[in-house]
Amino acid sequence: MARILIINGPNLNLLGTREPEIYGTETLEEMNGRLSDLAKEINLQIDFFQSNHEGEIIDILQRESKKADGIIINPGALTHYSYAIRDAIAAINVETIEVHLSNLFARDDFRQKSVIAPVCRGQVCGFGFYGYAMALSYFSDMLED
Amino acid sequence: MARILIINGPNLNLLGTREPEIYGTETLEEMNGRLSDLAKEINLQIDFFQSNHEGEIIDILQRESKKADGIIINPGALTHYSYAIRDAIAAINVETIEVHLSNLFARDDFRQKSVIAPVCRGQVCGFGFYGYAMALSYFSDMLED
Amino acid sequence: MARILIINGPNLNLLGTREPEIYGTETLEEMNGRLSDLAKEINLQIDFFQSNHEGEIIDILQRESKKADGIIINPGALTHYSYAIRDAIAAINVETIEVHLSNLFARDDFRQKSVIAPVCRGQVCGFGFYGYAMALSYFSDMLED
Amino acid sequence: MARILIINGPNLNLLGTREPEIYGTETLEEMNGRLSDLAKEINLQIDFFQSNHEGEIIDILQRESKKADGIIINPGALTHYSYAIRDAIAAINVETIEVHLSNLFARDDFRQKSVIAPVCRGQVCGFGFYGYAMALSYFSDMLED
Amino acid sequence: MARILIINGPNLNLLGTREPEIYGTETLEEMNGRLSDLAKEINLQIDFFQSNHEGEIIDILQRESKKADGIIINPGALTHYSYAIRDAIAAINVETIEVHLSNLFARDDFRQKSVIAPVCRGQVCGFGFYGYAMALSYFSDMLED
Amino acid sequence: MARILIINGPNLNLLGTREPEIYGTETLEEMNGRLSDLAKEINLQIDFFQSNHEGEIIDILQRESKKADGIIINPGALTHYSYAIRDAIAAINVETIEVHLSNLFARDDFRQKSVIAPVCRGQVCGFGFYGYAMALSYFSDMLED
Amino acid sequence: MARILIINGPNLNLLGTREPEIYGTETLEEMNGRLSDLAKEINLQIDFFQSNHEGEIIDILQRESKKADGIIINPGALTHYSYAIRDAIAAINVETIEVHLSNLFARDDFRQKSVIAPVCRGQVCGFGFYGYAMALSYFSDMLED
Amino acid sequence: MARILIINGPNLNLLGTREPEIYGTETLEEMNGRLSDLAKEINLQIDFFQSNHEGEIIDILQRESKKADGIIINPGALTHYSYAIRDAIAAINVETIEVHLSNLFARDDFRQKSVIAPVCRGQVCGFGFYGYAMALSYFSDMLED
Amino acid sequence: MARILIINGPNLNLLGTREPEIYGTETLEEMNGRLSDLAKEINLQIDFFQSNHEGEIIDILQRESKKADGIIINPGALTHYSYAIRDAIAAINVETIEVHLSNLFARDDFRQKSVIAPVCRGQVCGFGFYGYAMALSYFSDMLED
Amino acid sequence: MARILIINGPNLNLLGTREPEIYGTETLEEMNGRLSDLAKEINLQIDFFQSNHEGEIIDILQRESKKADGIIINPGALTHYSYAIRDAIAAINVETIEVHLSNLFARDDFRQKSVIAPVCRGQVCGFGFYGYAMALSYFSDMLED
Amino acid sequence: MARILIINGPNLNLLGTREPEIYGTETLEEMNGRLSDLAKEINLQIDFFQSNHEGEIIDILQRESKKADGIIINPGALTHYSYAIRDAIAAINVETIEVHLSNLFARDDFRQKSVIAPVCRGQVCGFGFYGYAMALSYFSDMLED
Amino acid sequence: MARILIINGPNLNLLGTREPEIYGTETLEEMNGRLSDLAKEINLQIDFFQSNHEGEIIDILQRESKKADGIIINPGALTHYSYAIRDAIAAINVETIEVHLSNLFARDDFRQKSVIAPVCRGQVCGFGFYGYAMALSYFSDMLED
Repeated sequence: MARILIINGPNLNLLGTREPEIYGTETLEEMNGRLSDLAKEINLQIDFFQSNHEGEIIDILQRESKKADGIIINPGALTHYSYAIRDAIAAINVETIEVHLSNLFARDDFRQKSVIAPVCRGQVCGFGFYGYAMALSYFSDMLED
Repeated sequence: MARILIINGPNLNLLGTREPEIYGTETLEEMNGRLSDLAKEINLQIDFFQSNHEGEIIDILQRESKKADGIIINPGALTHYSYAIRDAIAAINVETIEVHLSNLFARDDFRQKSVIAPVCRGQVCGFGFYGYAMALSYFSDMLED
Repeated sequence: MARILIINGPNLNLLGTREPEIYGTETLEEMNGRLSDLAKEINLQIDFFQSNHEGEIIDILQRESKKADGIIINPGALTHYSYAIRDAIAAINVETIEVHLSNLFARDDFRQKSVIAPVCRGQVCGFGFYGYAMALSYFSDMLED
Repeated sequence: MARILIINGPNLNLLGTREPEIYGTETLEEMNGRLSDLAKEINLQIDFFQSNHEGEIIDILQRESKKADGIIINPGALTHYSYAIRDAIAAINVETIEVHLSNLFARDDFRQKSVIAPVCRGQVCGFGFYGYAMALSYFSDMLED
Repeated sequence: MARILIINGPNLNLLGTREPEIYGTETLEEMNGRLSDLAKEINLQIDFFQSNHEGEIIDILQRESKKADGIIINPGALTHYSYAIRDAIAAINVETIEVHLSNLFARDDFRQKSVIAPVCRGQVCGFGFYGYAMALSYFSDMLED
Repeated sequence: MARILIINGPNLNLLGTREPEIYGTETLEEMNGRLSDLAKEINLQIDFFQSNHEGEIIDILQRESKKADGIIINPGALTHYSYAIRDAIAAINVETIEVHLSNLFARDDFRQKSVIAPVCRGQVCGFGFYGYAMALSYFSDMLED
Repeated sequence: MARILIINGPNLNLLGTREPEIYGTETLEEMNGRLSDLAKEINLQIDFFQSNHEGEIIDILQRESKKADGIIINPGALTHYSYAIRDAIAAINVETIEVHLSNLFARDDFRQKSVIAPVCRGQVCGFGFYGYAMALSYFSDMLED
Repeated sequence: MARILIINGPNLNLLGTREPEIYGTETLEEMNGRLSDLAKEINLQIDFFQSNHEGEIIDILQRESKKADGIIINPGALTHYSYAIRDAIAAINVETIEVHLSNLFARDDFRQKSVIAPVCRGQVCGFGFYGYAMALSYFSDMLED
Repeated sequence: MARILIINGPNLNLLGTREPEIYGTETLEEMNGRLSDLAKEINLQIDFFQSNHEGEIIDILQRESKKADGIIINPGALTHYSYAIRDAIAAINVETIEVHLSNLFARDDFRQKSVIAPVCRGQVCGFGFYGYAMALSYFSDMLED
Repeated sequence: MARILIINGPNLNLLGTREPEIYGTETLEEMNGRLSDLAKEINLQIDFFQSNHEGEIIDILQRESKKADGIIINPGALTHYSYAIRDAIAAINVETIEVHLSNLFARDDFRQKSVIAPVCRGQVCGFGFYGYAMALSYFSDMLED
Repeated sequence: MARILIINGPNLNLLGTREPEIYGTETLEEMNGRLSDLAKEINLQIDFFQSNHEGEIIDILQRESKKADGIIINPGALTHYSYAIRDAIAAINVETIEVHLSNLFARDDFRQKSVIAPVCRGQVCGFGFYGYAMALSYFSDMLED
Repeated sequence: MARILIINGPNLNLLGTREPEIYGTETLEEMNGRLSDLAKEINLQIDFFQSNHEGEIIDILQRESKKADGIIINPGALTHYSYAIRDAIAAINVETIEVHLSNLFARDDFRQKSVIAPVCRGQVCGFGFYGYAMALSYFSDMLED
């Protein structure tokens, strides 16, 4: 059974209470619950990680990628400047998808630049919870080939 | 049954022969066939449009959006400068998803700016055929709520 | 009797339904009706054109300008990038006025640059329907001299 | 009877002698005379002000706007940098129109940016004397509603 | 006998009447006549196309390139922003030369950037009619090898 | 007893009526009254100046600074372009604090650049009336040393 | 009794030894001692935090803000790029003031941009120790209302 | 006898006390005395003006230029943004020389741009008092021709 | 018989050995031989110059242009910064064509700006040896008129 | 015996497996072994540190610099934005050399900007393992003086 | 008797024939003659140099500055990019004045930047021949002190 | 025995007298002496070149590189704009190291950009004489492999 990492960056642990008009009222735990249910249906194993530390995210990427078949990452605001996470992803050679809950293109200017997306398979943004689901089903279909 | 428009812009009619190392060898017709099959499974009606003309795409958006529940658009290179298509999407009030076959973030600089995404629900890029499928299943789930 | 062309660009056919908080609830047809009434009063003949196609607007400018004494153009979003329309206006030698319904200076950054205004007589923006009326009465007074 | 202020900024008192190939040979006094005649016809009261001092223009805006129904302002070169006049107009809550004699879009780069227009109703430029007339008739029609 | 397409973009149908101090007094028809004569001498077949529509130019490139050995294109003002034409040329795999009548480097800033030239064989500008002749003789010599 | 100048620039005389959602409903006079009371408590003498004229503010800085121990200046919109006021403050050698009622960083882009702050002791913004009080108490504590 | 967090970012633990010509010779501990004394006088409870880790600062903001009435933060050099701290402050809904010891406007260019100030109540810079005191007395007065 | 205006802008009345390491210890009065002596020797009449007000400088330029044969202006910091003074000089048709005491090219970035010099005869900077003398002797030699 | 100068700038003497994947394997001498043959056929006299020194190229332009009817220059990398060569060409009044072997538009960013082309008749790039031939035949045809 | 710190930043622990076409196949441990051998020869003591955490690097710089005579740092991708590390180096007053394995100037644009080098003694890049050796021998020679 | 070098850069040897509407009809030799006459009157020895070679100008600056009391340099177009000449002037410690015949501020954008002026005493531009005279008399007066 | 060229560009012949606070008091001859001694120790043959002429440096690179095994170049200020030297180095295929005496990153902005380093093996700056030694020992070790 293929194994997918879902890594959430800074402040995503606040989901449900943080600016709910943008991010909705579902907590990270609830969202992860829904993703677990979906994963079972489509026969994937998921492991969840969340950290506010850039360094920890890099450690996770390095350590966990060894036994992963795909990575879904929402780097939070680190998206816009963490060249170190970019290098980590470039180094580990596991297909990675960048996901964002909100439509970055419709928000602040600085949110429209991702320094991480260039080393990913692709980017999905603007679909809330559903973005993670879209990425999961991509892996489900690709990995069974 | 919900109705989804899939609109492809300039040069996407060349799929299969155009730069296959980037875009693959599947033709637009074959890809559309696969999307039709998927649509049946998830109970959606799709209508396909392709044009190399900015003006025609605007005409289609205005005319067809009246009886559509969702739009998936791959504006091709018009993505990078057609403020007129942007205005059309902003005007018609139908949820729209921008899709690109390749990962724009990993190509030329000019391909990293979308003037259209800010008025869309979200953007999906880098997954080839599968990006359209991801957008379709988003609509499938959302529209049944 | 002097003859004036009024050319409206992409998405202006949606007037009345498109973002009414910006553009009002009057349709293009109703607005044109009001302009026809005004034209009669001030002894001008008007011909109306609307197109979502850059190429068609250029065709109209080339063909219709031969028997026109003045042109009023609202190029819609093409204002911001159509150097081809700019070249057409520069080529035809008929006095042209650029009109916009909304005050471009109070909106998005990209709307504050006109690539077309430099080859026009002048620009009027922010007065809704009344901007066309101002341009018409300018021609009425100038052409009778 | 509605009362309109017409405020002209730096160097507009030189009209008629200053760069006549751009600004024509009519003096400010003659132009104001023509505008007074027009105002009588369309039943408006006008008060004229001219100053080369940014501070005085702000004083006038603050003091005179209390009994005015509309303002027409040609800020001259202050258009391009006087955020203080912008703030004054934003503060006084009287509908204001920015007018320029020449087509700013066809001149130096620095003349294509207005820091004042964003807080005005709209901008009219390129029609010489007639720009003021267009603004006056706008007020005439709007204020009688 | 090798077959060359000559494609002229927006406003080039106005040659002879449009800004003759820049573009000369010869019409497009006369110029094409001269090019036909030259083509006969150097044993090439030419087909001429002109359109003011970006979309039509893309259609022509896709359709006609199938039986062409070389393309000469003067995209007019589309040179400066039509990434869609650029993509069409990149897709069709026929050697293409960009030609301009005037010396773009000696005119407006915006005319000094070509988004199309990077996917062409080369660019020739500033030689009026003779630029097309230079491109034709290039093909004549190259294709006979 | 130490003497502090409080200089307010353009449009601050409108306090209480100007955009009250940003600036509150207290007038400049009332605010100055409150500052006078505070000054007495902390044993400072204050002199108040307000002008809409850049030149007058420079005159005041030059003339009044001779007998002042500290200056609090809110240059209004002149903050963003008056290099002449900057030079005046640099010339007079009296410690100066720049104060703004609103949080400039949370407003328009142009309000985030101060050409004056580089020659001041520091800047305080975003605290309404209280910003002046903070600056006064700074002087109170510093000057008694 | 109201509770205020004072959070100091990277390198502020070096106060007293680090570039004393800019930051003075007082240590962070001594400064905190002075702030504790002041807090007692004005009836506030303060808690002090210092960290060189961006992630830890975010943890503190998230954890400690739950029982805080106000926050004073000096993010050190993180001011200029930590969008993650910005998001944390935006998420927690406790009024926050950004403080800097030195006058950022009079130093390197890069120090003149704060990505954090836009989500704060205001910014105070240039007053050394006294900037914290100014922020504390602001909270003292505001919170008693 | 030819008549020359010497106009000094904001803060030049502080010469001798203002930043003497840049501007020297001679006062404006002393400098003007020296220039008067020089003028007598080379048979010129000089009139001196100094103002901290942009508007007053424009008034002087307009009023005094009618009976002047040449103008020497040191606009102080207004050099860098007063397009209104630029327009005044362009309007009056009297040969004007821009003089600066210090070498602007060796100071702050913002001091290296003059918006006024483009409409002057030339610019002299970096020679202190001697710059005015150089400009005077230029007029002396030119005007006697 | 008309006389044409062909001037090649820095590093063009290395042709044939330098980056042959870009510049081909033909040496400068061989290329010049082919051009001499062509010149004879079309009745032109050519003189060849090559120098790695900007100053020498200027000397040649000044000295040799006196007896030349046309100039073909490939300034090598000096194209991108030698305003001094630009000034030399502008000064000598002999029609000049800028030629480049490779398609500059398809290479590094810095190679896409020519400071010299604005003062030339036109530019030809991307055709290798054939670019010189195209320029020669242009002169051949033009000079016989 | 002089003591040198060698600090490697994010992802350098992956040496040997990470993009070996750029960084070679030697591991960090192997490289450190070679550096230890070299150090013995030239009579230096080295201590090695590696961390993926910006905060930890700052802690190390602060703590270990107290007993160090020189520092060699390869900040990895933090080079391009970590103003906090820059401040740490500026604060500790131990001579520091920035080293990079690859030639940053020949890679991505963003790698060409170092925010840390301005506070270092110098920078060495492009020599792989040998860059550290070059820096060590510099310290060896300098510290024995 | 003080000795002054006058160094003219590229293309200034063409004076009199080069673009006479900008540079006048006087040759360099004639101008130098006039300057020699002036020098005799004011008791200075001048040596003239002209070169089209950046390297030669640096050689001259290094060699001749040893016995010079002042330098007047017109670097021609090298003004805008020769950091090497700038470094030479900074190295030699002889007071240097930059002179230009035309008013650079009123010409092309690229001519408004001098990379050399920051290391000179000052700059004089726009006065033709007279600019050299002004610089000479400056040295005459300064060197006799 | 391997042969290394050491090429020094403009103004480096002034070493020892030029800005000694930056470049030290050792002359170029003395430095070369020290390098010769070092070369003997590590069994390398060095040839020294210095020129103030860009063209001569290119000539040397082309001519001398034929019998060289490595090149050390300090292009002086040409570093920042000589694309022609860059092209020469790219053309000759001999490993080249760029060396600078001072830490360019800690000086003027313009000194932080090297147009030459991208085609070199690497860059060493900030170590004075020792930078050349570091480069030499690199070659010594590499070439013996």
